[in-house]
Amino acid sequence: MMFLPIFFFFSLLFSFSQASVVDFCVADFSLPDGPAGYSCKKPAKVTVDDFTYSGLGKVGNTSNIIKAAVTPAFAAQFGGVNGLGLSMARLDIAVDGVVPMHTHPGASEILFVGLLHFQINSGKTNALAIVSFSSSNPGLQILDFALFANDLPSELVEKTTFLDDAQVKKLKKVLGGTG
Amino acid sequence: MMFLPIFFFFSLLFSFSQASVVDFCVADFSLPDGPAGYSCKKPAKVTVDDFTYSGLGKVGNTSNIIKAAVTPAFAAQFGGVNGLGLSMARLDIAVDGVVPMHTHPGASEILFVGLLHFQINSGKTNALAIVSFSSSNPGLQILDFALFANDLPSELVEKTTFLDDAQVKKLKKVLGGTG
Amino acid sequence: MMFLPIFFFFSLLFSFSQASVVDFCVADFSLPDGPAGYSCKKPAKVTVDDFTYSGLGKVGNTSNIIKAAVTPAFAAQFGGVNGLGLSMARLDIAVDGVVPMHTHPGASEILFVGLLHFQINSGKTNALAIVSFSSSNPGLQILDFALFANDLPSELVEKTTFLDDAQVKKLKKVLGGTG
Amino acid sequence: MMFLPIFFFFSLLFSFSQASVVDFCVADFSLPDGPAGYSCKKPAKVTVDDFTYSGLGKVGNTSNIIKAAVTPAFAAQFGGVNGLGLSMARLDIAVDGVVPMHTHPGASEILFVGLLHFQINSGKTNALAIVSFSSSNPGLQILDFALFANDLPSELVEKTTFLDDAQVKKLKKVLGGTG
Amino acid sequence: MMFLPIFFFFSLLFSFSQASVVDFCVADFSLPDGPAGYSCKKPAKVTVDDFTYSGLGKVGNTSNIIKAAVTPAFAAQFGGVNGLGLSMARLDIAVDGVVPMHTHPGASEILFVGLLHFQINSGKTNALAIVSFSSSNPGLQILDFALFANDLPSELVEKTTFLDDAQVKKLKKVLGGTG
Amino acid sequence: MMFLPIFFFFSLLFSFSQASVVDFCVADFSLPDGPAGYSCKKPAKVTVDDFTYSGLGKVGNTSNIIKAAVTPAFAAQFGGVNGLGLSMARLDIAVDGVVPMHTHPGASEILFVGLLHFQINSGKTNALAIVSFSSSNPGLQILDFALFANDLPSELVEKTTFLDDAQVKKLKKVLGGTG
Repeated sequence: MMFLPIFFFFSLLFSFSQASVVDFCVADFSLPDGPAGYSCKKPAKVTVDDFTYSGLGKVGNTSNIIKAAVTPAFAAQFGGVNGLGLSMARLDIAVDGVVPMHTHPGASEILFVGLLHFQINSGKTNALAIVSFSSSNPGLQILDFALFANDLPSELVEKTTFLDDAQVKKLKKVLGGTG
Repeated sequence: MMFLPIFFFFSLLFSFSQASVVDFCVADFSLPDGPAGYSCKKPAKVTVDDFTYSGLGKVGNTSNIIKAAVTPAFAAQFGGVNGLGLSMARLDIAVDGVVPMHTHPGASEILFVGLLHFQINSGKTNALAIVSFSSSNPGLQILDFALFANDLPSELVEKTTFLDDAQVKKLKKVLGGTG
Repeated sequence: MMFLPIFFFFSLLFSFSQASVVDFCVADFSLPDGPAGYSCKKPAKVTVDDFTYSGLGKVGNTSNIIKAAVTPAFAAQFGGVNGLGLSMARLDIAVDGVVPMHTHPGASEILFVGLLHFQINSGKTNALAIVSFSSSNPGLQILDFALFANDLPSELVEKTTFLDDAQVKKLKKVLGGTG
Repeated sequence: MMFLPIFFFFSLLFSFSQASVVDFCVADFSLPDGPAGYSCKKPAKVTVDDFTYSGLGKVGNTSNIIKAAVTPAFAAQFGGVNGLGLSMARLDIAVDGVVPMHTHPGASEILFVGLLHFQINSGKTNALAIVSFSSSNPGLQILDFALFANDLPSELVEKTTFLDDAQVKKLKKVLGGTG
Repeated sequence: MMFLPIFFFFSLLFSFSQASVVDFCVADFSLPDGPAGYSCKKPAKVTVDDFTYSGLGKVGNTSNIIKAAVTPAFAAQFGGVNGLGLSMARLDIAVDGVVPMHTHPGASEILFVGLLHFQINSGKTNALAIVSFSSSNPGLQILDFALFANDLPSELVEKTTFLDDAQVKKLKKVLGGTG
Repeated sequence: MMFLPIFFFFSLLFSFSQASVVDFCVADFSLPDGPAGYSCKKPAKVTVDDFTYSGLGKVGNTSNIIKAAVTPAFAAQFGGVNGLGLSMARLDIAVDGVVPMHTHPGASEILFVGLLHFQINSGKTNALAIVSFSSSNPGLQILDFALFANDLPSELVEKTTFLDDAQVKKLKKVLGGTG
């Protein structure tokens, strides 16, 4: 049986402590977040489940146009990492799948690649990668969405990217952009 | 027509993205702020207006005792900079105007000077400076207010600043201090 | 008469300022805290009392099993340090008292020792130390609590610490642990 | 006569102090930089010139393909901002000039626009913008350079951006990329 | 064939850029490190190899007393993560292997577990875990080494941990401690 | 006999560890410092003495014009705090002594007051205070030095502080300023 929890060694060691001062800040999703993350659950309401997340143990659904899936374990999904400056994600890429160009504003990223397939899985089996981020809530900006899935005038996109008009309009159409 | 918005290139590029994970935290002023800034508006409620601020395009009112005006674009005025560790201000100094000695606790400051007049505009025309801060909410401490616009005993101020009693009492009077 | 307040020079200098932009964030305990600390009290409600704390002037109660007492002046006790990345504590150790092994996750610690007694007061008089932390809310993890005051299976503790079974069970019993 | 120095109010106030402990770290370019910036010049060698920079007073040379110029005042050009988490730049855009799509990894950016021209100067006069960054050494990544001025196989670029083969090859040719 | 490089998406996207301002700081091991990490290699000397590390693709040698091995990809091993506030490690645990109690001062840790075995591999096959840290150079403090592999007087260890004298002396002997 | 070392609990617990990855960065004064502090001594050269500092155990020499003395234990004096974001100082104030108005740019400060005397010791015995800073290298800016011990034109000081000409000139003379 496969079982792939993320959990904290740290909390393993310490979360049962009777000490009243703690060193974690499990996200309380009932309040809005702030620049440093979500508000903290009251320590009395924190349980060991807050420090495990089984979401990364499930194969992502790659039945989509890019034949790839990102399963995040960011603060919004995995409240235990809130405020820790760290998160993970699972990346599934089916055969011929591709991860579109993107950036993570404000966060660094390391990729632990399961099989050699780069961003494009040109192999004969599915690929799995484990990704780490230096933020509990790394932004995700997909290049094509930023350029084409909007209502910026095509001319503006063209002038600032030097892409051809036909190219811009074609991708705007695919991605639902206007203008 | 003059039009002087501050806006984010960054958001220009990305704010129209359909991606659900974002990299900004527009201030929600309905809740109290914290050490890292204000709570974030829900992304669905954020508009492009949150990233532009026209306040710096207006000449500050320098009809005052120091003949100078600071127009801030801090997180409290310009919610889009909340949590970004950056803000700006406009500084207008009329002829013979002066910016009193001050500090910005916890923030660095760079000044882009419109015309050469130092802190004192001894020239023949109004001066404009654009100021940047390494904080979205830089403190502002004006020396004279700290020393004289309070009810600390004059003797205490005198002993710790070595200013003369007459000087301290004179400025306390001007600035509304007592003691 | 002894009187041992902690207060801020800084606020001494500036907290009476009429300036509307401030550089502190006194904890508002009516809301939950976040990764960066508590929400800020509205400046208009902040008083000089928020910046003084007399708790460290009182001798801690060392009538306990370890003959020692830690009196914290962390953000939870002393709202004025909220968000400042700094806090203090008072450490009282009676004769033959001892401070159990512990760590402060995420914070550095400096100890100003009143009399030479190390972690164990083997002297003939009470000892006092003043402790500083590089966090307004330093975690506190007492080794024995983490290891023995829990319901982790003894075998697990033994395998990961190489302690003997009898030793683990003995201390589990003392500290209320099970398993 | 125009004279446009950047300088620090802060240093104005304090840099003449006889105190031996200082609060700046002017870049010493004779040693390699590190993650937090350059090593600090010895305080005795620091002069007022380290805190002024006249580079932003000069109109950038816009006689180039994009008819625009960025004049940075980052730590590498203006050693006085080293370690302060803040820098500025000047942006000149001639008529019909354009600032190509770009990002600043790890830094936020605010733009103070001199005349309304967005990223593209479609007006009849030159435009000037003053830009602030929340880093003393903000990265600069120009989209087209990242995508096309390299030797990544065209197929890889195409698959990850969904751009057409002809488009990718055309821009690779313009920007000197191969593959 | 297995091939398990760590590399940066980010650098994939950008490291070929002709832009002169960069957003990484590959460790230059010829100089001592500082609080923020190692000095940066000159950009001209940085190659794509600085952003890949194949060390995590090799099974660690678990032929040791704990039947476990940690293979770090910290800044000291993998210069490309220097200054990024992020690192990874590979954890191999053979059957009946165990990871001793430890902490990582100043860093958070997330564990992606290959098979369910907790810290102790009580299963019938080897276990693999991928670990992420919120620091490029996370400290590692193994409890038993800290307590027993030193020359602190046994009495001191006993008084601060409440361990029995026989237990302390036994483990001091095993781990080479004296006193 | 009085003996007042500062030392680190933390290092007490861990510095004897055989682990090769460490969590401190003792200052190496042979190289220039950077924005984050001094370079780190090689771990093999670090000794327990690097974590103790007896300087705070000595009464400061208050035979001076202000009858007060500050004894710092900053990174420059006490290399063990380098990079930890924390430091301490000892403040001795003789009868009628005074600590001049000052600020610590970029650092917060907490004061543990030995006897009630505020900044001015108006009592009948010497006062001792223990001060903590949220920086290993807190700046120190003494107001009078900044205003008067320089060669800024008196007129400039007068206009920006609203102090009288006679007052400025008098204190410039006392403190060695010109202009």
